[in-house]
Amino acid sequence: MAVGQTSFPEMTTVAGISLGTTNAGIKQTERDDILILEMAAGGTAAAVFTQNAFCAAPVHVAKAHLIQNPRWLLINSGNANAGTGQQGMDDALASCSDVAQLVKGEPTQVLPFSTGVIGEHLPMEKMTSAFPAALANLKESNWKQAAQAIMTTDTFPKGASKMIELDGEKITITGISKGAGMIQPNMATMLCFMATDAKISQDLLQQCLSQAAELSFNRITVDGDTSTNDACVLMASACSKAAEITADSENYAIFSAAITEVCKQLAEAIVRDGEGATKLIRIHVEQALSDAEAVMVGKTIAHSPLVKTAFFASDPNWGRILAAVGRAGVENMDLNKVELYLGDVCIVEKGGRAASYTEEAGQAVMDKNEIMVTVKLGRGEKAQEILTCDFSYDYVKINAEYRT
Amino acid sequence: MAVGQTSFPEMTTVAGISLGTTNAGIKQTERDDILILEMAAGGTAAAVFTQNAFCAAPVHVAKAHLIQNPRWLLINSGNANAGTGQQGMDDALASCSDVAQLVKGEPTQVLPFSTGVIGEHLPMEKMTSAFPAALANLKESNWKQAAQAIMTTDTFPKGASKMIELDGEKITITGISKGAGMIQPNMATMLCFMATDAKISQDLLQQCLSQAAELSFNRITVDGDTSTNDACVLMASACSKAAEITADSENYAIFSAAITEVCKQLAEAIVRDGEGATKLIRIHVEQALSDAEAVMVGKTIAHSPLVKTAFFASDPNWGRILAAVGRAGVENMDLNKVELYLGDVCIVEKGGRAASYTEEAGQAVMDKNEIMVTVKLGRGEKAQEILTCDFSYDYVKINAEYRT
Repeated sequence: MAVGQTSFPEMTTVAGISLGTTNAGIKQTERDDILILEMAAGGTAAAVFTQNAFCAAPVHVAKAHLIQNPRWLLINSGNANAGTGQQGMDDALASCSDVAQLVKGEPTQVLPFSTGVIGEHLPMEKMTSAFPAALANLKESNWKQAAQAIMTTDTFPKGASKMIELDGEKITITGISKGAGMIQPNMATMLCFMATDAKISQDLLQQCLSQAAELSFNRITVDGDTSTNDACVLMASACSKAAEITADSENYAIFSAAITEVCKQLAEAIVRDGEGATKLIRIHVEQALSDAEAVMVGKTIAHSPLVKTAFFASDPNWGRILAAVGRAGVENMDLNKVELYLGDVCIVEKGGRAASYTEEAGQAVMDKNEIMVTVKLGRGEKAQEILTCDFSYDYVKINAEYRT
Repeated sequence: MAVGQTSFPEMTTVAGISLGTTNAGIKQTERDDILILEMAAGGTAAAVFTQNAFCAAPVHVAKAHLIQNPRWLLINSGNANAGTGQQGMDDALASCSDVAQLVKGEPTQVLPFSTGVIGEHLPMEKMTSAFPAALANLKESNWKQAAQAIMTTDTFPKGASKMIELDGEKITITGISKGAGMIQPNMATMLCFMATDAKISQDLLQQCLSQAAELSFNRITVDGDTSTNDACVLMASACSKAAEITADSENYAIFSAAITEVCKQLAEAIVRDGEGATKLIRIHVEQALSDAEAVMVGKTIAHSPLVKTAFFASDPNWGRILAAVGRAGVENMDLNKVELYLGDVCIVEKGGRAASYTEEAGQAVMDKNEIMVTVKLGRGEKAQEILTCDFSYDYVKINAEYRT
């Protein structure tokens, strides 16, 4: 049911980064469900995590280990290790120790990540006995296998890769993501693992990633639910020949823009794979007083089940979009200045239906599977884009039957 | 698809209040779609309205006319007269004038209400020519016909009636409501018209209604969408023999409690008729620091599509409830103090699955069609209840096909 371009792209390998997957039988399918990513010594790592107060045990552990200069990421799919109390914490820590022992590193150099069903304990024996196989498979070229191993309800593996040049030296940025439901503004049931061979300090890498995530993963929504396990990690191996990227430099600006672009591609792939999605919807909110106001209006539209079901039905029921704008919480909105467009078609102006609007013109836009909605608030000069998808029978089906 | 008790109750007539309905052909069905309610001279009226900034033309007019001592309510179903710009305002005002002329009253004594599709102009000719028939039908006993005439996607007419005694004199409170989708906390695509024969000042009646609406209609949600047209009106005809109800009196407390109870019954009926609903879910949030905090947590759970689809599937996927609590925005929540119950079954304690919990026990609760969820936050002593329903295939079907 994914929308549009879903083929896995060409992925450039990243010097100093290798990946290994295996099937531990957590998901009870043929698919690999364990991924270990190894970074050569000397690199740096940055991460952003879910803002859900009930964050899962591995999130707690990964946050604590992040400042210890980690070199390994351990990811399992099929079980989120969330809502698992003290034993969940013990399990997450034990899995780090197990990997550390095998690679002769410190447990604190391993960041654990889990995705899948909430409330069940990790099958520790299955996992532990699978780690050697994953490590034996470590290869620089395993990005597609890695993208497949972290999938849960995803219908296609998600990757993005980009090369830039800094002072004539090549830098690669390559990443994978997963997520299809529980996708919400402030990080989602999404995991994203990116790597680059750039040399950059941990602080600056973190700044770069936080900004990129804000403009990408925090601008998408499938169902308004925030997961307990979301995480986005960026590893920088320092293996390229380019000089270290420093703050406020032109090189930082180029690098930062490239990271944001890769994040945006990986985020868009998640929306394209939104559970039950049949349409990709880009909501542009323009002429807002602030970025926050634009985001607030965009997300209110994007979260409305009435708007989303109308898109599923290809019904230009613009009244529902207008109603969502109206309840978004913008103070002192002058309704007569609000304009609404479906694609290039002006639908609403001066508080009512545009004189030029015809149902046929609106219908022609709605019949497409990628739709742009533009809301002009007539209040200021700020603009933001929110990506979402429609709400279909299959969303209900997928989520009603997830555990059966 | 409505849940549980949906039969129309015995309705006690209210002295001084009569109702007339007719079919103006707005909905293109056999069903009546015009209701006129007339109150005898000498009464008072109070109302609360949608908080959506894009409120519909009739809402603007009704708000303005409310302070003019109205005696007539004019309601049409099938067309919301929302997003209709200046012509919508003109139409709403013209319909008041038309009724006023027929009843020899002032246009400002008529409050107009519309519900139905957004963005289309009222069929004024059809409406105007139907008013005489509605007025010719005015009867005290027409409450059920009235409840039917204001239905849109509702599957059953909704009414509630209660009698109290003040100083030995009987007071009747009788009301009807409509609404099934676009039902959200701060008033919804819901209309509610109540009447009483009590004698009470406009100010005090308004205070009473505002409080009752807060504890009833503002505690229910079907899909998180706030309509452009919501309104709840209470007419007090002053026709009973009871003395005037005054502020801070014991009689006011009795009257106010009765109004709240009728509002709660009418609100619950709306949730039972939630679009596609198969289950009624009562979410109790206890041990909160404040009422606002309790409402915030309850609504976050009630709005989660993941929680709602799990209820539809009768799946005790309590991790989704916990995830919703976690993202509700409560500051400094101590997860180890949070407890979660399905019915009487304790599911979560100390941040993880309760030791005593079994999937069978959870399943037994989920298999019922009325389910109580209790969340104890372990922070304070405030408690609030939010009512909602599940999210089914039929919700998508109803809203995807609404205009086709």
